Amino acid sequence: MSDWREIVGTNVRRFRQAAGITQEQLAFAAEIDLTYVGGIERGRRNPSVIVLARIANALSVEPATLLQRSK
Amino acid sequence: MSDWREIVGTNVRRFRQAAGITQEQLAFAAEIDLTYVGGIERGRRNPSVIVLARIANALSVEPATLLQRSK
Repeated sequence: MSDWREIVGTNVRRFRQAAGITQEQLAFAAEIDLTYVGGIERGRRNPSVIVLARIANALSVEPATLLQRSK
Repeated sequence: MSDWREIVGTNVRRFRQAAGITQEQLAFAAEIDLTYVGGIERGRRNPSVIVLARIANALSVEPATLLQRSK
């Protein structure tokens, strides 16, 4: 099975950069810790549905988008 | 913001029933506790990306599908 933490991390970084915001700005908007954002982007953390939804909301994407495998 | 635990729960139940398997069979296939499957389906639990991926794998759907809002 794929490492879904890495897929999520890559997607979060990609959409965050596309939104032109820093990890710190994302952390603030999603109300999560800055080090946690870094850990998610590096595929080291295993975020919950609620955290995914907060990040997605802060990035103006659907939560499902963060679980999309890159084509 | 929507309650994503409920969306995930509704989706898990729907795909599990479509697959014609019991909560117990899903728990066994996804290697998670039976009571945890029940809690997820009722929208009471906040599963992680890795748990979502294991459930999706057991149901032969993509993890992103479990985060899809019903149309």
